Amino acid sequence: MTETAPAPDTALDTAPNPVLAGYRASIDNIDAALIHILAERFRITKAVGAYKAEHNLPASDAGREERQIARLRKLAAEANLDPEFSEKFLRFIIQEVIRHHEQAQSKG
Amino acid sequence: MTETAPAPDTALDTAPNPVLAGYRASIDNIDAALIHILAERFRITKAVGAYKAEHNLPASDAGREERQIARLRKLAAEANLDPEFSEKFLRFIIQEVIRHHEQAQSKG
Repeated sequence: MTETAPAPDTALDTAPNPVLAGYRASIDNIDAALIHILAERFRITKAVGAYKAEHNLPASDAGREERQIARLRKLAAEANLDPEFSEKFLRFIIQEVIRHHEQAQSKG
Repeated sequence: MTETAPAPDTALDTAPNPVLAGYRASIDNIDAALIHILAERFRITKAVGAYKAEHNLPASDAGREERQIARLRKLAAEANLDPEFSEKFLRFIIQEVIRHHEQAQSKG
């Protein structure tokens, strides 16, 4: 490599600072885990959507959602994660689930 | 239990339908895993924030963010997860990281 550009951004991942590089390696591993766990979650919710459609069950269940939120807020607090964030997170995921169900309906 | 109310929402979690109850048990396990992995991710990003502040390093790094997004989109596609969603997801997480850093600064 010649010194044509300082490229600090690229360099950061290749450890000009070993402490930051270590943190980033952990974050990258965690993100890969999150993506794969989310992929599995949506695989299941798509199966739920198909099952509900097939058996004429209601698509949404407000009571279930409220119980999920209450449970996650409790788990979050125990894990030192902001419960508000855990609720926002679940609502973010549920929005995507609804989008999948709407897509499936428009295809069906 | 007497028949004072039909309470379909509560009943759903206690398996009037064993197929749905099985799916929900999987989703609940996955959500607990997600919450704990996210708690660990934020634990690390808080350490990163403290380390950067201590060493006068810039708080954000646009190049790093773009590389993270590109990598997650690729991982998502391989896991049959919508790459658009993986990008939205990372941006959602990063927003929370920024909020933590702002909180830490206002306390510091």
